[in-house]
Amino acid sequence: MLPDSDFKKLTAPESIALVGVTSRTGRGSNSALEVLLKRGYKGRIYPVNPKGGEILGCRAFTSLLEVPEVPDLAVICAPRDAVIELFKQCAAKGVKIVIIVAQGFFDGDEEGILMQQELLDIAAKNGIRVLGPNTLGIVNNYHNFCTSFIDFINPIKPIGITCQTGTFYLGASQLCTGIGILVDSGNTTDISVTDVIGHLARDPRLKVINIHMESLSDGTRFMEAAKDAAALKPVIIYKTGSTPAGSLAASSHTGKLSGEDRVFDAAFKQCGLLRVADAEEMGDLSKAFCTFNGIKGNRIGIVSISGGAGVMAADACIRFGLEIAVPTKATLEQLEVLFPKWAHCTNPMDMWPAAMFHGYQNCYRRILEAFLQDPQVDAVICMTGSFLTTDEDFLDVSGDIREIAGKYPDKPVVVSSCGNNYRYYEEELEKDNTVAYYFTLERAARALAALYKYHHLIKKKVRRHKELVLPHRQSGDAARLLAGKTGNLSQDDALSLLEAYGIPVARWGRAENIGEALALANKIGYPVTMKIVSPDIIHKSDVGGIRLNIENSRQLEEAFSAMYAEIEQKQPGARLSGVIIQEHLPSGIELLLGCKRDPVFGPVLAFGAGGIFTEILNDISLRIPPLSREEAREMIEETKVSKMLKGARGVKAVDMDLLINCLAALSELVLKNSAISEIDLNPLLAFDGRVAALDARVILA
Amino acid sequence: MLPDSDFKKLTAPESIALVGVTSRTGRGSNSALEVLLKRGYKGRIYPVNPKGGEILGCRAFTSLLEVPEVPDLAVICAPRDAVIELFKQCAAKGVKIVIIVAQGFFDGDEEGILMQQELLDIAAKNGIRVLGPNTLGIVNNYHNFCTSFIDFINPIKPIGITCQTGTFYLGASQLCTGIGILVDSGNTTDISVTDVIGHLARDPRLKVINIHMESLSDGTRFMEAAKDAAALKPVIIYKTGSTPAGSLAASSHTGKLSGEDRVFDAAFKQCGLLRVADAEEMGDLSKAFCTFNGIKGNRIGIVSISGGAGVMAADACIRFGLEIAVPTKATLEQLEVLFPKWAHCTNPMDMWPAAMFHGYQNCYRRILEAFLQDPQVDAVICMTGSFLTTDEDFLDVSGDIREIAGKYPDKPVVVSSCGNNYRYYEEELEKDNTVAYYFTLERAARALAALYKYHHLIKKKVRRHKELVLPHRQSGDAARLLAGKTGNLSQDDALSLLEAYGIPVARWGRAENIGEALALANKIGYPVTMKIVSPDIIHKSDVGGIRLNIENSRQLEEAFSAMYAEIEQKQPGARLSGVIIQEHLPSGIELLLGCKRDPVFGPVLAFGAGGIFTEILNDISLRIPPLSREEAREMIEETKVSKMLKGARGVKAVDMDLLINCLAALSELVLKNSAISEIDLNPLLAFDGRVAALDARVILA
Repeated sequence: MLPDSDFKKLTAPESIALVGVTSRTGRGSNSALEVLLKRGYKGRIYPVNPKGGEILGCRAFTSLLEVPEVPDLAVICAPRDAVIELFKQCAAKGVKIVIIVAQGFFDGDEEGILMQQELLDIAAKNGIRVLGPNTLGIVNNYHNFCTSFIDFINPIKPIGITCQTGTFYLGASQLCTGIGILVDSGNTTDISVTDVIGHLARDPRLKVINIHMESLSDGTRFMEAAKDAAALKPVIIYKTGSTPAGSLAASSHTGKLSGEDRVFDAAFKQCGLLRVADAEEMGDLSKAFCTFNGIKGNRIGIVSISGGAGVMAADACIRFGLEIAVPTKATLEQLEVLFPKWAHCTNPMDMWPAAMFHGYQNCYRRILEAFLQDPQVDAVICMTGSFLTTDEDFLDVSGDIREIAGKYPDKPVVVSSCGNNYRYYEEELEKDNTVAYYFTLERAARALAALYKYHHLIKKKVRRHKELVLPHRQSGDAARLLAGKTGNLSQDDALSLLEAYGIPVARWGRAENIGEALALANKIGYPVTMKIVSPDIIHKSDVGGIRLNIENSRQLEEAFSAMYAEIEQKQPGARLSGVIIQEHLPSGIELLLGCKRDPVFGPVLAFGAGGIFTEILNDISLRIPPLSREEAREMIEETKVSKMLKGARGVKAVDMDLLINCLAALSELVLKNSAISEIDLNPLLAFDGRVAALDARVILA
Repeated sequence: MLPDSDFKKLTAPESIALVGVTSRTGRGSNSALEVLLKRGYKGRIYPVNPKGGEILGCRAFTSLLEVPEVPDLAVICAPRDAVIELFKQCAAKGVKIVIIVAQGFFDGDEEGILMQQELLDIAAKNGIRVLGPNTLGIVNNYHNFCTSFIDFINPIKPIGITCQTGTFYLGASQLCTGIGILVDSGNTTDISVTDVIGHLARDPRLKVINIHMESLSDGTRFMEAAKDAAALKPVIIYKTGSTPAGSLAASSHTGKLSGEDRVFDAAFKQCGLLRVADAEEMGDLSKAFCTFNGIKGNRIGIVSISGGAGVMAADACIRFGLEIAVPTKATLEQLEVLFPKWAHCTNPMDMWPAAMFHGYQNCYRRILEAFLQDPQVDAVICMTGSFLTTDEDFLDVSGDIREIAGKYPDKPVVVSSCGNNYRYYEEELEKDNTVAYYFTLERAARALAALYKYHHLIKKKVRRHKELVLPHRQSGDAARLLAGKTGNLSQDDALSLLEAYGIPVARWGRAENIGEALALANKIGYPVTMKIVSPDIIHKSDVGGIRLNIENSRQLEEAFSAMYAEIEQKQPGARLSGVIIQEHLPSGIELLLGCKRDPVFGPVLAFGAGGIFTEILNDISLRIPPLSREEAREMIEETKVSKMLKGARGVKAVDMDLLINCLAALSELVLKNSAISEIDLNPLLAFDGRVAALDARVILA
């Protein structure tokens, strides 16, 4: 997180230098000065332009060094090739926060990359924090402040925004519905979302945070910052570059690949972020969080102009995990008098038959109020008609809905309508921030579901988060096992490593010769499995290097010589270091437990279906360690294969704690041993109420 | 399908009686006459109202019988309790098409249900076709015709619509973007979507069909009609009542449950319908089909005001199955001159760096045109800025995009923008129907993907559809096996039934005693499995009635007596009819093949993961028989388990034709034997390149 004083200088400076600002003015002039003046910024402005003179009534300084104070913030407005020189002026002047607008650095050619590197070096030497390059900078609507060189429609809304593209900056009025404070980090070479979301989360004027993220370089720090923010405020994230083609496009946009999407997805989930699929969903959710401070539960009342729309609304609720409220008897009795005897007075409530006898507005008011008073209703979805022109609209209930909803501020009321005059309804209904309008019932239900998710699932969970504590650690052994090694760890080292961390492994031992093998097998107990140990053999089964289900000493002797003979024939000269003799386990459920290092987030744990199913079902869940026990449990339960662990068809259930302990141990192992770049237990066998690893692949960096 | 003449009388009548129309007029009067006159309907109108006199300048008849001709269409506008009487007048007058508007029939109470039954009886006796009850009826914007009693905004668009709720009727301007011809079937007791989509598909004025469906009673007929329509025109369907709560709401809306959603989903897929998740998607897709006549392929060029939006657009394309076009070298060379040396001239094309030097409009035109000329680009997504007010918008390219796009009518151009003034862009861009505007890039890409899907996948497939022909049928045997039976078929009858249709079954036979069992086992070859045969034992394994992997005659004798002893102890008195001796098969992939009768669609085939995986993975695909070989293949390939059939980890691949033949045989079996209400082959074992059923459960109605 940026120090408070730096964040203030960046987003609410008392003085600003616009270095290299154009002297042109008017339409299409791209003058940051003109935009800033138009916004009514109250701080001291110092335009710097080599021509000097006056621009829009402000004295223009020919050099930043002439400016009579050290400004809180400098914005370098010049094109790429002039930037370094002007940045040096900033350093010489002692400016500590600089925004660089120009494109063509990491997002450009070889020369641009070198230039950006030089900028970063100068910044480091002079203690300067940089936003950009390739950014429009800041909007702070509470400070009449904005660094854009292009004017734009800019409604104020209590939303904190970070983004990595001008599209989002200029489009935030549409994509996020408005702006409170916005930070565009552009190429994100220094100041990033991680530095600012904590400040946005703590700003009492803001109700929700919107993140547009294309790439990230500091996954771990980001997760800390995001968890912190999500515990304070809803954080909505729109991650782009989520497909290979998008990621490729991102690399030419900001010079960075955007990372593996499913890892981001896991990280966002862990942090309690609300990930959205597109900007429309972001705007919809933001609107809900700006309008409603909470929601008591997920039981929804539906008031509809028609039965057909009631069906749509019910579908939408279920689809997004909401429940159809069951109104109290008292509520229904109170409303039944409105309906003809043949009509159904229930939830969803098709109020048209009532309206035909008692007037549309009257019925709408009474039904809505009865639902809002009902202790068994937590929120209401209203559907009305917008099919008449405003002048002729004898069914207009926008004022009625607003008025009634306003009396029950703890119960969200969202509205949708049918018919082309919906923009009138949207405007009318939202004018005092009491209710939220959505184009479809599906979008209305999705917004309520996000409210429920944030207030009842995320907020508590993120706050509750505790690191997993393990009873049993032997990292000393692990360090000895790994010392001085690279590449693939031998099978026996790999199994020992697991054991050092308390991960159960099918009983095993290494034997140098048949004598040792026989002794081992006796100790372990038949049946056993035998596997060759060799640094040269990658696919053991291809050369006959695995023998399963050996039932007695005679079979072991036969198998031993047969195996050596086959290997000698199929891979002559392979160095052989004896065999592993392992307990042969009964059949069970094959699981996968593993970890890979991600360039953004570091170690990423994987759990899911193992064996042949790993690739086919893709039934894998990911998490970034460390995990709480609860997170580990969620990680396991997210997979389909986990349902099989609960016992079925006479198969004994596997104690979930055994698996949680395995995850915890693996988490410890990879966090303590950074030399491990990849580890896979496949299969980890669940059988007879137990789990045990049969095999492990460990790759060292 | 309705006869042509009836469809014409329904949607474009030359004369219409408004029976029971109100004499009130003006705001809120709910007068169908007033709406009809306002629309400028040119046919002869006969208001019928017991008060007689004149309404809005039209003579009102006190009875339909007084009307001087038999009108093409009668609309009964009166409330429920007056309907039967007026319907009898229609019958007496000889009217053949009647619309009943009132609510409270199947959607109402017991009395309403009886009344609707009476209406149907009268209709049947008099050869009357009924639309409704509970409907607003018809809109035909090519005939200035509309039967609604409420006025509504009603833009004309080349869209044919069927729906089951007034919400859709009145809201079609918003939900479908406009109306050409609309039929609201309300409770759908007679005339339904099935009767009209063929007419809509053949109307040369209409470009796309939108269906809102809540329930369906004639699945098979609908599928025929829908396939026919989809081969002629894109058909978009929004199915509601798709969740249990929605279905429950539907039952009080139209008196019908809405059916099992995944069966509908399978049926829609087979018919080539474009199913949408909500009305917004329906409108988006309709707009694309109204604007563009086709699309050559799925390679998309992206012209963007910013790099960040280019990334979003690329993501969106990939997400919806489109490809990022690779422009020709010539295209890129021609455009490179516009860019500063450090900028990337590629697709997605971030044109901002070019715009800074050569002007926004100029660059936009040149890039868009170059992409449209490029043989490697099939369609273009444009992203621009709508962040300035119209007056100040020096970046306005709406006219430029329209002009250039208009020169290349065979290449769709869709546009999105960022910033709050997007409605101006939507209006400007769409004003001559050259391009389509979408609020987000995701929605733009989704619309292009639907164009591609319809023109390249659905249209051809629906036309190609052929019924599956089987080489081998023995339905005679099957009839004999099923004759006179009900409930659960015995295991040996079930296996014989499969064999009668050529479905491979693990070799088996029934033995009455140990002597026959030994002989059978010798014939089949050890190892064998033995299962008890008994009409009283449901779960054989619970009473020891299954013995696996019997290796020789000694084991068989032991197992035989042990089994009988255990059953005698666990279920004394159970009637035993000998045992089934079956070939013991090696382990393999357990599949499920089955069929259930659906109340809407009749037999529904199921294929997927069998054994313990059936419930856990829910990896099942459904289809309505008969199937073409291609459909059967698609059905199989839709499942994840099918990937395991391609051979992996040394397991032999299973010939897809074996499975297709099984599906074909099962399809024949259930279509020919309507007594079968449910059949399950679980597991159907795939092993060693073969498939064989081990077990079958057959339930007769």
